[in-house]
Amino acid sequence: MEAPRGLPLDTALRERAFKVVPGGMWGHMNARNLPAGYPQFFTEASGARLRDADGNEYLDFMCGYGPMILGYGDPEVDEAARAQRARMDIANGPAEVMVELAETMVATIPAADWAMFAKNGTDATTACVMIARAHAGRRKILVAKGAYHGAAPWCTPWPGGTTAEDRAHLIHYRYNDVASLEAAVAEAGDDLAGILASAFRHDARIDQEMPAPEFACAARALADRHDAALIIDEVRAGFRIDLRGSWEPLGVRPDLSAWSKALGNGYPIAAVTGADTMREAARKIFVTGSFWCSAVPMAAALATLRKLHRIDAVAHMKRLGLMLREGIQAQADALGVGLRQSGPAQLPLILFDDDPVFEKGNLFTVTALQHGVYLHPWHDMFLSAAHTEDDIAIALEATGRALEAVAQTLP
Amino acid sequence: MEAPRGLPLDTALRERAFKVVPGGMWGHMNARNLPAGYPQFFTEASGARLRDADGNEYLDFMCGYGPMILGYGDPEVDEAARAQRARMDIANGPAEVMVELAETMVATIPAADWAMFAKNGTDATTACVMIARAHAGRRKILVAKGAYHGAAPWCTPWPGGTTAEDRAHLIHYRYNDVASLEAAVAEAGDDLAGILASAFRHDARIDQEMPAPEFACAARALADRHDAALIIDEVRAGFRIDLRGSWEPLGVRPDLSAWSKALGNGYPIAAVTGADTMREAARKIFVTGSFWCSAVPMAAALATLRKLHRIDAVAHMKRLGLMLREGIQAQADALGVGLRQSGPAQLPLILFDDDPVFEKGNLFTVTALQHGVYLHPWHDMFLSAAHTEDDIAIALEATGRALEAVAQTLP
Repeated sequence: MEAPRGLPLDTALRERAFKVVPGGMWGHMNARNLPAGYPQFFTEASGARLRDADGNEYLDFMCGYGPMILGYGDPEVDEAARAQRARMDIANGPAEVMVELAETMVATIPAADWAMFAKNGTDATTACVMIARAHAGRRKILVAKGAYHGAAPWCTPWPGGTTAEDRAHLIHYRYNDVASLEAAVAEAGDDLAGILASAFRHDARIDQEMPAPEFACAARALADRHDAALIIDEVRAGFRIDLRGSWEPLGVRPDLSAWSKALGNGYPIAAVTGADTMREAARKIFVTGSFWCSAVPMAAALATLRKLHRIDAVAHMKRLGLMLREGIQAQADALGVGLRQSGPAQLPLILFDDDPVFEKGNLFTVTALQHGVYLHPWHDMFLSAAHTEDDIAIALEATGRALEAVAQTLP
Repeated sequence: MEAPRGLPLDTALRERAFKVVPGGMWGHMNARNLPAGYPQFFTEASGARLRDADGNEYLDFMCGYGPMILGYGDPEVDEAARAQRARMDIANGPAEVMVELAETMVATIPAADWAMFAKNGTDATTACVMIARAHAGRRKILVAKGAYHGAAPWCTPWPGGTTAEDRAHLIHYRYNDVASLEAAVAEAGDDLAGILASAFRHDARIDQEMPAPEFACAARALADRHDAALIIDEVRAGFRIDLRGSWEPLGVRPDLSAWSKALGNGYPIAAVTGADTMREAARKIFVTGSFWCSAVPMAAALATLRKLHRIDAVAHMKRLGLMLREGIQAQADALGVGLRQSGPAQLPLILFDDDPVFEKGNLFTVTALQHGVYLHPWHDMFLSAAHTEDDIAIALEATGRALEAVAQTLP
């Protein structure tokens, strides 16, 4: 890695942006959410590497906040997309690839008897909620407190611009807490439409939690008992835990699942998959978007799914995630730095003990960044199939320096 | 044009799709909305031409329901997108092209002091509503009865899966009816947040209406009087009426505008633009999506805007739209067929007199389709910069035959 050059061009771009974009940036990629030293703008992305506007190169563990799963610019996916684009992208209807992609998702995901496509993860979670309501003819949706399911008025984490009515029929439970889920079901009474749960608990700023088997089973049983839909939000986790669906290893199959992010290796696509029981309800809702039937992202998604399967990408990401996790743990232990690594190793989160305002996390990640490794202080990170063992060694070199900085500066 | 080959492969694809997609298709591109004879699936798109799965070629006047404005696969736009993709598409933040695109929109659209980007038209209209509410600290949004502003629960035209609360703070007025708008403002009382209006009235199945100047002025004055936002939904009309904004010729500038469809000539992008007065409110809402900062569609949009401007695409579309309109009118008059052509000529709609269930419209469009011209019986159509005078002559040959069929079969 070259020595970092600072961010003068990034700063200049931020100043230009500030004039023509509210606040200069918005949403989850707003670098104001990150410690000083992180770039806002990028110029190149290739494999597991990013280059910022100032020419600094980073080994990336955010993967575009999830979409990149095979590597930025994966040649196989890009070639499938290019070939499709040479024929058609948007038209007055879909291309054959829509059918192939739906067939492939149904063949890959045991809980899926059908698929529909969209653009945003929010499109998919919202459609799941609508289908659950249309199926049950009821209104209440149970949602885990603090979970992120998108940025529409019914689910966005900020109150700005929303009304109380946008969430009138949400009831909250605590993830992995069966008693709280039962209480929420009781509160919904005869108006229960669906139980929505993330594939695992990946709320920002707190330790991640894998779904407890008894929680997953209880959610399934409660949904069954009340003829309500069990909805899994796979937008963030999908295709990194298990290609068949993140709850498949638990033996729990949802009625509806929302997918996006990694599905097209960065090409913009989202999907809802569902069980046969939900098919009629899915026909009763009207959801659509100008680009939802575009063929290029579907061709990219098909190529992505095929390659993920062929190379057993999940096993690779899991193995490298564990290497990273174990390496960091050894470094932290040797330095006496208290930290917690939670969630699946391929979607790592590192939080420091006694670090309420992320001072240690910020110092850790900024130091790693200065050594060419892009981590996140409080959002889950992402491994990809493009990461190699050598990359993990490079990352561990940076995390070693970063942990030393934490041990020395904020002991 | 070759003789049409029928749709055996399309039928086979529909049967496959029916197994893995609810109802075989969904949304606005569902060919079940169209008369028998229309294809569901396409294989090629180039210029103003589409080819269906059976190899039938059509001169297209739907333009992918709007996104195509320079021609399918416009080489200039595709080259800009390809060059950007070779560097990066998605990363952990945007590329410089986001700033260039925002600057270009601000320079192009006099009402715009800033821009934000998204994927769906619905993302943009929803963000406008949220910004208006965040700005005013109030809730009521006035919407024209029957207008389409997207397919989220608050605006989707079907009730399936929605709740009464999703629309709790909408108040309806009649488009172009100042008295009804005033009544809606009165009903909102001190809770008025915004007035939402389409660039022109393009509700499906009824005659289109251009915005009456007195209506546009009244909307502006009422919004000003109540410190509420005037929001123009440009998703469908944008960049076809006037590159500066569809109400600019009226001298009426909105506080917020929602854009999508034609902005990227088919590449998936949406935008909100707003006045300085709305900048702080835009910072107060949290809206985002996994692919909203992707660079490729932004590069495509930049190239699209530049080419639209350079070739004066609006004048071209208007001129060819008028040629088509006048030609059809002459044909209809000669045959004694009563029909109405409404709205801007570059977004044509043709409805027949005494045709409550679109029997004439269906026969007209199916006959045109059999002669290789893809029209729509009850949704506005779209001209593009790729259409030529020769294309209009080809279209008029088909509409002549189609009007004869109407005159003979349904006099």
